Amino acid sequence: MGKLYGVSVGTGDPELITVKGLKLLQQATIVAFPEGIQGKPGIAERIIQPWLQSHQMLLPLKFPYVQDDQQLTQAWQAAAQTVLSYLQNGEEIAFACEGDIRFYSTFTYLAQTLQELDSHVEIETVPGVCSPMAAASELGIPLSARSQRLMILPALYHVEELETALQAAEVVVLMKFSAFYSQVWELLQQKGLLDSAWIVEKATMPDQAIYENLRDRDSLQLSYFSIMIVQTATSNQLRANC
Amino acid sequence: MGKLYGVSVGTGDPELITVKGLKLLQQATIVAFPEGIQGKPGIAERIIQPWLQSHQMLLPLKFPYVQDDQQLTQAWQAAAQTVLSYLQNGEEIAFACEGDIRFYSTFTYLAQTLQELDSHVEIETVPGVCSPMAAASELGIPLSARSQRLMILPALYHVEELETALQAAEVVVLMKFSAFYSQVWELLQQKGLLDSAWIVEKATMPDQAIYENLRDRDSLQLSYFSIMIVQTATSNQLRANC
Repeated sequence: MGKLYGVSVGTGDPELITVKGLKLLQQATIVAFPEGIQGKPGIAERIIQPWLQSHQMLLPLKFPYVQDDQQLTQAWQAAAQTVLSYLQNGEEIAFACEGDIRFYSTFTYLAQTLQELDSHVEIETVPGVCSPMAAASELGIPLSARSQRLMILPALYHVEELETALQAAEVVVLMKFSAFYSQVWELLQQKGLLDSAWIVEKATMPDQAIYENLRDRDSLQLSYFSIMIVQTATSNQLRANC
Repeated sequence: MGKLYGVSVGTGDPELITVKGLKLLQQATIVAFPEGIQGKPGIAERIIQPWLQSHQMLLPLKFPYVQDDQQLTQAWQAAAQTVLSYLQNGEEIAFACEGDIRFYSTFTYLAQTLQELDSHVEIETVPGVCSPMAAASELGIPLSARSQRLMILPALYHVEELETALQAAEVVVLMKFSAFYSQVWELLQQKGLLDSAWIVEKATMPDQAIYENLRDRDSLQLSYFSIMIVQTATSNQLRANC
Protein backbone atom coordinates (compact mmCIF):
# COMPACT_ATOMS: atom_id res chain seq x y z
CA MET A 1 0.00 0.00 0.00
CA GLY A 2 1.35 3.44 -0.97
CA LYS A 3 0.85 6.68 0.91
CA LEU A 4 -1.00 9.91 0.23
CA TYR A 5 0.74 13.19 1.06
CA GLY A 6 -1.46 16.26 1.22
CA VAL A 7 0.89 19.11 0.39
CA SER A 8 0.00 22.75 1.05
CA VAL A 9 1.46 24.78 -1.80
CA GLY A 10 0.67 28.29 -0.53
CA THR A 11 -1.33 31.09 -2.05
CA GLY A 12 0.20 31.80 -5.45
CA ASP A 13 3.93 32.53 -5.42
CA PRO A 14 5.49 29.08 -6.08
CA GLU A 15 8.26 29.86 -3.56
CA LEU A 16 5.71 29.99 -0.74
CA ILE A 17 5.69 26.19 -0.62
CA THR A 18 7.59 24.84 2.39
CA VAL A 19 10.89 23.01 2.04
CA LYS A 20 9.18 19.88 3.41
CA GLY A 21 6.24 20.21 1.03
CA LEU A 22 8.53 20.67 -1.97
CA LYS A 23 10.55 17.60 -1.05
CA LEU A 24 7.44 15.40 -0.78
CA LEU A 25 5.95 16.90 -3.95
CA GLN A 26 9.08 16.10 -5.94
CA GLN A 27 9.58 12.62 -4.46
CA ALA A 28 6.08 11.40 -5.32
CA THR A 29 5.63 9.31 -8.46
CA ILE A 30 2.14 10.79 -8.95
CA VAL A 31 1.09 14.40 -8.41
CA ALA A 32 -2.65 14.96 -7.99
CA PHE A 33 -4.50 18.29 -7.85
CA PRO A 34 -8.01 19.66 -8.38
CA GLU A 35 -8.70 19.90 -12.11
CA GLY A 36 -9.13 23.42 -13.49
CA ILE A 37 -12.37 24.57 -15.07
CA GLN A 38 -13.06 25.43 -18.72
CA GLY A 39 -9.83 23.81 -19.87
CA LYS A 40 -7.66 26.18 -17.79
CA PRO A 41 -5.15 24.83 -15.27
CA GLY A 42 -6.35 24.95 -11.66
CA ILE A 43 -4.72 27.20 -9.06
CA ALA A 44 -2.66 24.53 -7.27
CA GLU A 45 -1.64 23.16 -10.68
CA ARG A 46 -0.34 26.58 -11.75
CA ILE A 47 1.53 27.08 -8.48
CA ILE A 48 3.44 23.77 -8.70
CA GLN A 49 4.31 24.13 -12.42
CA PRO A 50 7.95 25.18 -11.79
CA TRP A 51 8.52 22.30 -9.36
CA LEU A 52 7.22 19.33 -11.36
CA GLN A 53 9.67 16.69 -12.61
CA SER A 54 9.31 15.40 -16.16
CA HIS A 55 8.95 11.78 -15.00
CA GLN A 56 6.04 12.51 -12.64
CA MET A 57 2.55 11.42 -13.58
CA LEU A 58 -0.07 14.15 -13.29
CA LEU A 59 -3.46 13.22 -11.91
CA PRO A 60 -6.11 15.96 -12.14
CA LEU A 61 -9.13 15.16 -9.96
CA LYS A 62 -12.61 16.56 -10.62
CA PHE A 63 -14.12 18.57 -7.78
CA PRO A 64 -17.12 20.39 -9.25
CA TYR A 65 -17.90 23.94 -8.11
CA VAL A 66 -21.45 23.14 -7.01
CA GLN A 67 -23.40 23.23 -3.76
CA ASP A 68 -25.45 20.09 -4.43
CA ASP A 69 -24.54 17.44 -1.82
CA GLN A 70 -25.26 14.48 -4.07
CA GLN A 71 -23.07 15.75 -6.91
CA LEU A 72 -20.26 16.56 -4.47
CA THR A 73 -20.42 13.17 -2.79
CA GLN A 74 -20.28 11.47 -6.19
CA ALA A 75 -17.24 13.53 -7.19
CA TRP A 76 -15.42 12.73 -3.92
CA GLN A 77 -16.23 9.04 -4.35
CA ALA A 78 -14.86 8.99 -7.88
CA ALA A 79 -11.70 10.92 -6.93
CA ALA A 80 -11.11 8.71 -3.87
CA GLN A 81 -11.56 5.54 -5.95
CA THR A 82 -8.97 6.75 -8.46
CA VAL A 83 -6.48 7.66 -5.74
CA LEU A 84 -7.12 4.39 -3.90
CA SER A 85 -6.36 2.28 -6.98
CA TYR A 86 -2.93 3.93 -7.30
CA LEU A 87 -2.25 3.59 -3.55
CA GLN A 88 -3.12 -0.11 -3.78
CA ASN A 89 -0.44 -0.37 -6.48
CA GLY A 90 2.08 0.93 -3.94
CA GLU A 91 2.43 4.42 -5.44
CA GLU A 92 3.28 7.50 -3.41
CA ILE A 93 0.89 10.30 -4.33
CA ALA A 94 1.28 13.99 -3.51
CA PHE A 95 -1.98 15.95 -3.59
CA ALA A 96 -1.19 19.63 -4.17
CA CYS A 97 -3.55 22.03 -2.47
CA GLU A 98 -3.55 25.85 -2.65
CA GLY A 99 -3.21 27.68 0.67
CA ASP A 100 -3.09 25.42 3.72
CA ILE A 101 -4.46 21.91 3.29
CA ARG A 102 -6.36 21.90 6.60
CA PHE A 103 -7.89 25.37 6.10
CA TYR A 104 -11.13 25.26 4.06
CA SER A 105 -9.68 22.73 1.65
CA THR A 106 -11.27 20.21 -0.70
CA PHE A 107 -8.71 17.74 0.58
CA THR A 108 -10.86 17.26 3.72
CA TYR A 109 -13.52 15.41 1.70
CA LEU A 110 -11.06 13.45 -0.39
CA ALA A 111 -9.30 12.24 2.77
CA GLN A 112 -12.58 11.45 4.55
CA THR A 113 -13.95 9.49 1.58
CA LEU A 114 -10.68 7.58 1.16
CA GLN A 115 -10.71 6.54 4.79
CA GLU A 116 -14.32 5.39 4.49
CA LEU A 117 -13.36 3.27 1.47
CA ASP A 118 -10.32 1.76 3.16
CA SER A 119 -9.42 2.44 6.77
CA HIS A 120 -5.81 1.33 6.14
CA VAL A 121 -5.04 4.23 3.84
CA GLU A 122 -2.09 6.20 5.19
CA ILE A 123 -2.35 9.99 4.87
CA GLU A 124 0.12 12.67 5.94
CA THR A 125 -0.35 16.40 5.44
CA VAL A 126 2.13 19.25 5.36
CA PRO A 127 0.88 22.65 6.56
CA GLY A 128 1.43 25.80 4.53
CA VAL A 129 0.79 29.48 3.97
CA CYS A 130 -2.91 30.38 4.02
CA SER A 131 -4.42 33.45 2.36
CA PRO A 132 -5.06 35.61 5.47
CA MET A 133 -1.36 35.39 6.44
CA ALA A 134 -0.22 36.03 2.86
CA ALA A 135 -2.58 39.03 2.57
CA ALA A 136 -1.26 40.60 5.79
CA SER A 137 2.35 40.25 4.61
CA GLU A 138 1.49 41.79 1.24
CA LEU A 139 -0.27 44.68 2.99
CA GLY A 140 2.62 45.15 5.40
CA ILE A 141 0.32 45.08 8.43
CA PRO A 142 -0.04 42.67 11.34
CA LEU A 143 -2.95 40.27 10.88
CA SER A 144 -3.33 40.07 14.64
CA ALA A 145 -1.35 41.15 17.68
CA ARG A 146 -1.33 40.78 21.45
CA SER A 147 -4.78 40.02 22.89
CA GLN A 148 -6.75 40.60 19.65
CA ARG A 149 -9.24 37.87 18.91
CA LEU A 150 -9.21 36.86 15.26
CA MET A 151 -12.33 35.66 13.45
CA ILE A 152 -12.34 34.24 9.94
CA LEU A 153 -15.56 34.06 7.91
CA PRO A 154 -14.99 31.72 4.95
CA ALA A 155 -17.95 33.17 3.05
CA LEU A 156 -20.55 35.83 3.65
CA TYR A 157 -24.21 34.88 3.31
CA HIS A 158 -25.76 37.95 4.99
CA VAL A 159 -24.07 41.23 5.94
CA GLU A 160 -25.37 40.75 9.51
CA GLU A 161 -22.78 37.99 9.92
CA LEU A 162 -20.06 40.61 9.58
CA GLU A 163 -21.78 42.83 12.14
CA THR A 164 -21.87 39.94 14.62
CA ALA A 165 -18.23 39.08 13.93
CA LEU A 166 -17.12 42.69 14.49
CA GLN A 167 -18.68 42.51 17.95
CA ALA A 168 -17.05 39.16 18.75
CA ALA A 169 -13.47 39.84 17.61
CA GLU A 170 -10.94 42.64 17.23
CA VAL A 171 -9.85 41.43 13.79
CA VAL A 172 -12.20 39.97 11.21
CA VAL A 173 -11.11 38.33 7.97
CA LEU A 174 -13.68 37.97 5.20
CA MET A 175 -13.20 35.45 2.40
CA LYS A 176 -15.55 35.11 -0.60
CA PHE A 177 -17.40 38.32 0.16
CA SER A 178 -17.23 39.97 -3.26
CA ALA A 179 -20.95 39.58 -4.04
CA PHE A 180 -21.75 41.55 -0.86
CA TYR A 181 -19.15 44.28 -1.28
CA SER A 182 -21.58 47.26 -1.36
CA GLN A 183 -23.36 46.11 1.79
CA VAL A 184 -20.04 45.44 3.53
CA TRP A 185 -18.85 48.93 2.57
CA GLU A 186 -22.02 50.54 3.96
CA LEU A 187 -21.70 48.68 7.25
CA LEU A 188 -18.03 49.64 7.60
CA GLN A 189 -18.91 53.26 6.85
CA GLN A 190 -21.64 53.27 9.54
CA LYS A 191 -19.16 51.84 12.04
CA GLY A 192 -16.36 54.24 11.08
CA LEU A 193 -14.13 51.31 10.08
CA LEU A 194 -13.35 52.14 6.44
CA ASP A 195 -9.88 53.33 7.44
CA SER A 196 -9.09 50.07 9.17
CA ALA A 197 -10.15 47.74 6.38
CA TRP A 198 -7.96 46.44 3.55
CA ILE A 199 -8.52 44.16 0.58
CA VAL A 200 -6.04 41.90 -1.19
CA GLU A 201 -7.17 40.27 -4.39
CA LYS A 202 -5.28 37.12 -5.47
CA ALA A 203 -2.60 37.50 -2.79
CA THR A 204 0.92 36.63 -4.04
CA MET A 205 -0.35 35.72 -7.53
CA PRO A 206 1.13 37.56 -10.55
CA ASP A 207 -2.06 39.67 -10.91
CA GLN A 208 -2.39 40.55 -7.20
CA ALA A 209 -4.19 43.82 -6.44
CA ILE A 210 -4.35 45.76 -3.16
CA TYR A 211 -7.16 48.13 -2.19
CA GLU A 212 -6.56 50.59 0.65
CA ASN A 213 -8.36 53.86 1.41
CA LEU A 214 -11.71 52.18 0.99
CA ARG A 215 -13.43 55.47 1.87
CA ASP A 216 -13.37 56.35 -1.85
CA ARG A 217 -14.39 52.92 -3.07
CA ASP A 218 -18.08 52.36 -2.45
CA SER A 219 -18.21 49.91 -5.33
CA LEU A 220 -15.58 47.44 -6.49
CA GLN A 221 -15.60 44.52 -8.91
CA LEU A 222 -13.57 41.94 -7.02
CA SER A 223 -12.42 38.45 -7.85
CA TYR A 224 -13.74 35.48 -5.90
CA PHE A 225 -10.19 35.18 -4.47
CA SER A 226 -10.27 38.34 -2.42
CA ILE A 227 -9.55 38.71 1.27
CA MET A 228 -10.69 41.59 3.45
CA ILE A 229 -9.03 42.31 6.80
CA VAL A 230 -10.96 44.55 9.20
CA GLN A 231 -9.42 45.73 12.46
CA THR A 232 -11.75 47.13 15.08
CA ALA A 233 -8.87 48.44 17.23
CA THR A 234 -6.09 50.50 15.68
CA SER A 235 -2.53 49.58 16.48
CA ASN A 236 -2.24 52.66 18.70
CA GLN A 237 -5.28 51.70 20.72
CA LEU A 238 -3.90 48.21 20.77
CA ARG A 239 -0.59 49.32 22.15
CA ALA A 240 -2.25 51.44 24.82
CA ASN A 241 -4.82 48.85 25.87
CA CYS A 242 -2.79 45.69 26.21
CA MET B 1 20.21 51.95 3.20
CA GLY B 2 19.81 48.18 3.61
CA LYS B 3 16.57 46.26 3.91
CA LEU B 4 14.90 44.27 6.66
CA TYR B 5 13.29 40.95 5.77
CA GLY B 6 10.86 39.51 8.27
CA VAL B 7 11.04 35.77 7.66
CA SER B 8 8.44 33.37 9.06
CA VAL B 9 10.26 30.17 9.98
CA GLY B 10 7.26 28.00 10.90
CA THR B 11 6.38 26.20 14.10
CA GLY B 12 9.30 23.92 14.89
CA ASP B 13 10.29 21.53 12.11
CA PRO B 14 13.04 23.45 10.26
CA GLU B 15 11.67 22.20 6.92
CA LEU B 16 8.44 24.11 7.49
CA ILE B 17 10.16 27.30 6.37
CA THR B 18 9.09 28.36 2.86
CA VAL B 19 11.47 28.19 -0.09
CA LYS B 20 11.25 31.99 -0.35
CA GLY B 21 11.92 32.46 3.35
CA LEU B 22 14.92 30.13 3.27
CA LYS B 23 16.40 31.98 0.30
CA LEU B 24 16.11 35.36 2.02
CA LEU B 25 17.38 33.95 5.32
CA GLN B 26 20.49 32.54 3.66
CA GLN B 27 21.18 35.61 1.49
CA ALA B 28 21.16 38.06 4.41
CA THR B 29 24.49 39.12 5.86
CA ILE B 30 22.92 39.45 9.31
CA VAL B 31 20.37 37.10 10.87
CA ALA B 32 18.40 38.56 13.79
CA PHE B 33 16.02 36.72 16.14
CA PRO B 34 14.50 37.12 19.61
CA GLU B 35 17.11 36.20 22.22
CA GLY B 36 16.36 33.11 24.29
CA ILE B 37 15.89 33.25 28.03
CA GLN B 38 18.12 31.84 30.78
CA GLY B 39 20.96 31.31 28.36
CA LYS B 40 18.97 28.89 26.18
CA PRO B 41 18.55 29.51 22.45
CA GLY B 42 15.18 31.01 21.51
CA ILE B 43 12.60 29.09 19.46
CA ALA B 44 13.23 30.82 16.11
CA GLU B 45 16.97 30.51 16.72
CA ARG B 46 16.67 26.75 17.22
CA ILE B 47 14.48 26.35 14.12
CA ILE B 48 16.95 28.11 11.79
CA GLN B 49 20.06 26.35 13.18
CA PRO B 50 20.39 23.90 10.24
CA TRP B 51 20.03 26.71 7.67
CA LEU B 52 22.58 29.22 8.94
CA GLN B 53 25.72 29.91 6.89
CA SER B 54 29.05 30.13 8.69
CA HIS B 55 29.74 33.65 7.34
CA GLN B 56 26.47 35.10 8.63
CA MET B 57 26.48 37.41 11.62
CA LEU B 58 23.98 36.49 14.33
CA LEU B 59 22.09 39.29 16.05
CA PRO B 60 20.00 38.23 19.07
CA LEU B 61 17.53 40.96 20.08
CA LYS B 62 16.13 41.30 23.59
CA PHE B 63 12.33 41.14 23.84
CA PRO B 64 11.56 40.63 27.53
CA TYR B 65 8.63 38.37 28.51
CA VAL B 66 6.86 41.03 30.55
CA GLN B 67 3.51 42.83 30.40
CA ASP B 68 4.81 46.23 31.49
CA ASP B 69 4.33 48.72 28.64
CA GLN B 70 7.29 50.90 29.58
CA GLN B 71 9.74 48.00 29.72
CA LEU B 72 8.41 46.66 26.41
CA THR B 73 8.65 50.03 24.69
CA GLN B 74 12.24 50.43 25.92
CA ALA B 75 13.15 46.99 24.61
CA TRP B 76 11.59 47.68 21.19
CA GLN B 77 13.42 51.02 21.02
CA ALA B 78 16.75 49.41 21.80
CA ALA B 79 16.22 46.57 19.30
CA ALA B 80 15.06 48.98 16.60
CA GLN B 81 18.08 51.24 17.14
CA THR B 82 20.44 48.29 16.78
CA VAL B 83 18.74 47.09 13.60
CA LEU B 84 18.63 50.63 12.20
CA SER B 85 22.35 51.14 12.64
CA TYR B 86 23.07 48.04 10.54
CA LEU B 87 20.51 49.06 7.91
CA GLN B 88 22.16 52.48 7.67
CA ASN B 89 25.40 50.65 6.91
CA GLY B 90 23.66 49.08 3.91
CA GLU B 91 23.30 45.59 5.41
CA GLU B 92 20.50 43.18 4.51
CA ILE B 93 19.02 41.75 7.69
CA ALA B 94 16.73 38.74 7.99
CA PHE B 95 14.68 38.66 11.19
CA ALA B 96 13.64 35.06 11.90
CA CYS B 97 10.27 34.67 13.56
CA GLU B 98 8.59 31.46 14.73
CA GLY B 99 5.19 30.71 13.19
CA ASP B 100 3.86 33.39 10.84
CA ILE B 101 5.40 36.84 11.18
CA ARG B 102 2.07 38.69 10.92
CA PHE B 103 0.25 36.40 13.37
CA TYR B 104 0.75 37.50 17.02
CA SER B 105 4.41 38.22 16.43
CA THR B 106 6.93 40.38 18.25
CA PHE B 107 8.02 41.58 14.82
CA THR B 108 4.97 43.89 14.74
CA TYR B 109 6.49 46.15 17.41
CA LEU B 110 10.01 46.01 16.02
CA ALA B 111 8.72 47.05 12.58
CA GLN B 112 6.50 49.78 14.02
CA THR B 113 9.29 51.23 16.14
CA LEU B 114 11.75 51.12 13.24
CA GLN B 115 9.34 53.03 11.02
CA GLU B 116 8.82 55.61 13.74
CA LEU B 117 12.60 56.07 14.01
CA ASP B 118 13.09 56.34 10.25
CA SER B 119 10.20 56.34 7.79
CA HIS B 120 12.55 55.36 4.93
CA VAL B 121 13.28 51.93 6.36
CA GLU B 122 12.32 49.26 3.84
CA ILE B 123 10.67 46.16 5.28
CA GLU B 124 9.42 43.05 3.50
CA THR B 125 7.85 40.05 5.20
CA VAL B 126 7.45 36.46 4.05
CA PRO B 127 4.40 34.58 5.37
CA GLY B 128 4.70 31.12 6.89
CA VAL B 129 3.15 28.22 8.75
CA CYS B 130 1.31 29.25 11.93
CA SER B 131 0.61 26.98 14.88
CA PRO B 132 -3.15 26.36 14.34
CA MET B 133 -2.47 25.05 10.80
CA ALA B 134 0.49 22.96 11.99
CA ALA B 135 -1.58 21.52 14.86
CA ALA B 136 -4.42 20.49 12.53
CA SER B 137 -1.99 18.71 10.19
CA GLU B 138 -0.36 16.90 13.10
CA LEU B 139 -3.78 15.84 14.38
CA GLY B 140 -4.89 14.73 10.92
CA ILE B 141 -8.09 16.74 11.13
CA PRO B 142 -9.39 19.73 9.18
CA LEU B 143 -8.92 23.00 11.07
CA SER B 144 -11.97 24.41 9.31
CA ALA B 145 -14.19 23.42 6.41
CA ARG B 146 -17.01 24.76 4.27
CA SER B 147 -19.04 27.46 6.04
CA GLN B 148 -17.48 27.01 9.49
CA ARG B 149 -16.46 30.27 11.11
CA LEU B 150 -13.06 30.07 12.78
CA MET B 151 -12.17 32.05 15.87
CA ILE B 152 -8.71 32.26 17.36
CA LEU B 153 -8.17 33.38 20.96
CA PRO B 154 -4.47 34.22 21.44
CA ALA B 155 -4.75 33.90 25.21
CA LEU B 156 -7.45 33.12 27.71
CA TYR B 157 -8.08 35.57 30.54
CA HIS B 158 -11.46 34.23 31.73
CA VAL B 159 -13.16 30.97 30.82
CA GLU B 160 -16.26 32.99 29.80
CA GLU B 161 -14.32 34.15 26.72
CA LEU B 162 -14.29 30.57 25.50
CA GLU B 163 -18.03 30.27 26.13
CA THR B 164 -18.66 33.41 24.05
CA ALA B 165 -16.37 32.18 21.28
CA LEU B 166 -18.13 28.81 21.10
CA GLN B 167 -21.37 30.68 20.44
CA ALA B 168 -19.81 32.91 17.79
CA ALA B 169 -17.92 30.32 15.73
CA GLU B 170 -18.05 26.65 14.72
CA VAL B 171 -14.32 26.17 15.34
CA VAL B 172 -12.42 27.78 18.18
CA VAL B 173 -8.65 27.72 18.58
CA LEU B 174 -7.20 28.46 22.01
CA MET B 175 -3.61 29.55 22.42
CA LYS B 176 -1.90 30.12 25.79
CA PHE B 177 -4.74 28.55 27.76
CA SER B 178 -2.72 26.13 29.91
CA ALA B 179 -3.27 28.02 33.19
CA PHE B 180 -7.04 27.66 32.68
CA TYR B 181 -7.08 24.03 31.61
CA SER B 182 -9.33 22.71 34.42
CA GLN B 183 -11.93 25.40 33.83
CA VAL B 184 -11.81 24.85 30.07
CA TRP B 185 -12.27 21.12 30.62
CA GLU B 186 -15.31 21.69 32.84
CA LEU B 187 -16.93 24.01 30.32
CA LEU B 188 -16.34 21.55 27.48
CA GLN B 189 -17.80 18.75 29.59
CA GLN B 190 -20.93 20.81 30.33
CA LYS B 191 -21.36 21.52 26.62
CA GLY B 192 -20.71 17.91 25.56
CA LEU B 193 -17.69 18.97 23.51
CA LEU B 194 -14.91 16.88 25.07
CA ASP B 195 -15.00 14.51 22.08
CA SER B 196 -14.52 17.35 19.61
CA ALA B 197 -11.57 19.00 21.31
CA TRP B 198 -7.89 18.25 20.71
CA ILE B 199 -4.62 19.56 22.10
CA VAL B 200 -1.23 19.73 20.44
CA GLU B 201 1.70 20.74 22.59
CA LYS B 202 4.77 22.15 20.77
CA ALA B 203 3.43 21.29 17.31
CA THR B 204 6.12 19.96 14.93
CA MET B 205 8.87 20.34 17.56
CA PRO B 206 10.93 17.26 18.51
CA ASP B 207 9.04 16.95 21.82
CA GLN B 208 5.55 17.42 20.37
CA ALA B 209 2.70 15.78 22.31
CA ILE B 210 -0.90 15.17 21.22
CA TYR B 211 -3.84 14.84 23.61
CA GLU B 212 -7.06 13.29 22.31
CA ASN B 213 -9.91 11.66 24.25
CA LEU B 214 -9.99 14.55 26.69
CA ARG B 215 -12.89 12.91 28.52
CA ASP B 216 -10.33 11.09 30.68
CA ARG B 217 -8.06 14.09 31.20
CA ASP B 218 -9.64 16.50 33.63
CA SER B 219 -6.23 17.78 34.59
CA LEU B 220 -3.16 18.21 32.43
CA GLN B 221 0.17 19.97 32.90
CA LEU B 222 0.64 21.67 29.56
CA SER B 223 3.41 23.80 28.12
CA TYR B 224 2.80 27.44 27.28
CA PHE B 225 3.12 26.40 23.61
CA SER B 226 -0.07 24.38 23.47
CA ILE B 227 -2.93 24.78 21.02
CA MET B 228 -6.47 23.54 21.58
CA ILE B 229 -8.87 23.10 18.67
CA VAL B 230 -12.57 22.82 19.54
CA GLN B 231 -15.17 22.03 16.91
CA THR B 232 -18.78 22.75 17.79
CA ALA B 233 -20.11 20.82 14.76
CA THR B 234 -18.84 17.32 13.99
CA SER B 235 -17.71 16.59 10.46
CA ASN B 236 -20.87 14.54 9.89
CA GLN B 237 -23.12 17.36 10.95
CA LEU B 238 -20.97 19.59 8.81
CA ARG B 239 -21.40 17.48 5.75
CA ALA B 240 -25.16 17.25 6.27
CA ASN B 241 -25.69 20.94 7.03
CA CYS B 242 -23.72 22.69 4.35
